[in-house]
Amino acid sequence: MSGQPVLTGVKPAHKVFPEMDKKTIFHAGPPVDWSEMCGPMRGAFIGALKYEGLAANDEEAAALMDRGSIEYGPNHHHSAVGPMTGIISYSMPVFEVINETYQNKAYCTINEGLGEVMRFGANGPSVVARLKWLEQVLAPVLDRAVERAGGVNLKNIIAQALAMGDEMHQRNVAASLLFYRSIAGELAQEVNGRSDAKEIVEFVVNNVQFFLNLAMAASKATMDPARDIPHSTVVTAMSRNGGDFGINVSSLGSRWFTAPVNMPQGLYFPGFSEEDANPDMGDSTITECIGIGGFAMGCAPAVVNFVGAGSVSAALQYSRDMGEITVTRNPNLPMPNLNFLGAAIGIDICKVVETGILPVINTGIAHKKPGVGQVGAGIVKPPMQIFVDALKAFVKHEGL
Amino acid sequence: MSGQPVLTGVKPAHKVFPEMDKKTIFHAGPPVDWSEMCGPMRGAFIGALKYEGLAANDEEAAALMDRGSIEYGPNHHHSAVGPMTGIISYSMPVFEVINETYQNKAYCTINEGLGEVMRFGANGPSVVARLKWLEQVLAPVLDRAVERAGGVNLKNIIAQALAMGDEMHQRNVAASLLFYRSIAGELAQEVNGRSDAKEIVEFVVNNVQFFLNLAMAASKATMDPARDIPHSTVVTAMSRNGGDFGINVSSLGSRWFTAPVNMPQGLYFPGFSEEDANPDMGDSTITECIGIGGFAMGCAPAVVNFVGAGSVSAALQYSRDMGEITVTRNPNLPMPNLNFLGAAIGIDICKVVETGILPVINTGIAHKKPGVGQVGAGIVKPPMQIFVDALKAFVKHEGL
Repeated sequence: MSGQPVLTGVKPAHKVFPEMDKKTIFHAGPPVDWSEMCGPMRGAFIGALKYEGLAANDEEAAALMDRGSIEYGPNHHHSAVGPMTGIISYSMPVFEVINETYQNKAYCTINEGLGEVMRFGANGPSVVARLKWLEQVLAPVLDRAVERAGGVNLKNIIAQALAMGDEMHQRNVAASLLFYRSIAGELAQEVNGRSDAKEIVEFVVNNVQFFLNLAMAASKATMDPARDIPHSTVVTAMSRNGGDFGINVSSLGSRWFTAPVNMPQGLYFPGFSEEDANPDMGDSTITECIGIGGFAMGCAPAVVNFVGAGSVSAALQYSRDMGEITVTRNPNLPMPNLNFLGAAIGIDICKVVETGILPVINTGIAHKKPGVGQVGAGIVKPPMQIFVDALKAFVKHEGL
Repeated sequence: MSGQPVLTGVKPAHKVFPEMDKKTIFHAGPPVDWSEMCGPMRGAFIGALKYEGLAANDEEAAALMDRGSIEYGPNHHHSAVGPMTGIISYSMPVFEVINETYQNKAYCTINEGLGEVMRFGANGPSVVARLKWLEQVLAPVLDRAVERAGGVNLKNIIAQALAMGDEMHQRNVAASLLFYRSIAGELAQEVNGRSDAKEIVEFVVNNVQFFLNLAMAASKATMDPARDIPHSTVVTAMSRNGGDFGINVSSLGSRWFTAPVNMPQGLYFPGFSEEDANPDMGDSTITECIGIGGFAMGCAPAVVNFVGAGSVSAALQYSRDMGEITVTRNPNLPMPNLNFLGAAIGIDICKVVETGILPVINTGIAHKKPGVGQVGAGIVKPPMQIFVDALKAFVKHEGL
């Protein structure tokens, strides 16, 4: 609750992860073997290897993976998070967020926008070209603008956006604009005289989910200091790899408790249905860990129709109910629509098991075929089994 | 309800008001004589005469007014509106908004920002210098950016901002950013290579009330086609000059029904109290005529504390109650926080008199001394007498 996540820059992944070499890939969710990855996750791995110049085509990339030539593992093992497939590779730029209170850092990639994008498993030439543009054009400009702005306090933006209809998982319209405002002048200075000034400004300002990745890095930076606290039953991460849903629990370190993910219940974009949907995926559930996303749905009545959550009063009820399974409410993240009630923070596995109330998550739905992209949005809940398993492990660990 | 207000440009006042010459001043509210103007209104007149180069100092300006050398009258007589003192003079740039459905136009000045500004009656060198900068630097750039963007549909922005915590009278945080987004790329192009690129961008993007003046012009453009409809008892304008509150009623044309304004009930900024407050002032009440401002307070829980409206549920109740005194609700302006209930539009003098419910207005509070600026914000209601007087006049006019 006392965390102060501040964006300090946009750096190449290999500069901030000393453990990373060119043949390393980080991914969303708990660990998963190449042979068991879902379609979009496989597509994203293949795309990343083409983007890094390690493979000329899909076959070469798959062969590299089959041969075990590539090291890979969860973002969460490296103070990082990523939406959907969540891929981070050597050359990709990542937001660097420092939690000023605890001095820990967290990282997340830049949001690519909608349509054919790697986070949904797309890996064609346009996807790779956009990633190269992010790396070579946008990231250096953003990095300098953020530096000149003296950093950007993301918690302030999150608090303001809760008063502006965002919950910061499926709706980031206001937060994205507030972030843009915080660097607009410096960005104008930075692009001044460049022939691509308009293109750069429009990429940042027109992406309504631009802030998602910043909210995720801010949430990760906020939650990591809650890790490894003796006797604590607080959930420090929730995450999905497209096959399994996994959680970490504070006193149990980085051990994963996993079970097969559920299918989101939601609304599909025109032309798509539940048959097209990939099971739930991504590290974005770190937002719910700090009390935003589905936990703050009552702040975002306009998202209710988008995720098919029913009525506005149902959304308000979710935000009230989540207080039943958390340690406390965060007065630093007041929800104006709930008479300034604080966001519910610190999911407690004891309370989840005792009440039978599961965390509510607002999520995007990916097509199960790599590269089609987002086909809908909805609500999903973790499998209860992982909380039961974690509680059993906790009891054993404590010798109770 | 079918109006489509679109910003088409930013033009010098004398170009869009053929009836205006250098010695003409338009002001907020119903007609008022120079000798009876409140402090801030006098201060703004004096400032406008200095800004236009007609007077070298305050004494010369006052003497011009005393001698009757200056023509003046309400903005509303010229398809225009302005916040607080609402001054429009010959050289000032004004937003040009066309109602595409009815082809009528409406105008409003550019918001100057906070602090010492002419709309609160300030008239010192910094005020005049800022107005010159708006005229010579900002307005031409904005005009070209808006033109290149193909105009900006303001109704779309208003509808979106109602889902983002704004009511567009005392809170325009989201609408201002949405407006900025709509021209951000073109503006980046327009300022590219200029040494003042950063200054221009920051002036627009950092003013949280930038959109107020656009909301007012949009509201004026929306309401004017409702004028002069036989037998109609709809209020086509509400406006205050710092002394009187005035309304127009559709079937009664441009006749004003006036009575002394009330003092706003609200919260004062640190160091100020009700003793410092000027009576209610400005044309901004045109926003309430289309169902935003105080009428949409339920959309803006964060404004509740700013205007001292009590609880969030009180704000929601205001938005429900206003439906009791309007002709209908506008489905094109849904209020997400009220389960997408439409904004209450078309105040009916019959319903006001019958129910005893007065329109609720969110307003800024000016210091009574010219130039001090805003000292608070609050809620104000029009005097009931003007609705009674208008209804009596209507009965007589109809020969009932």
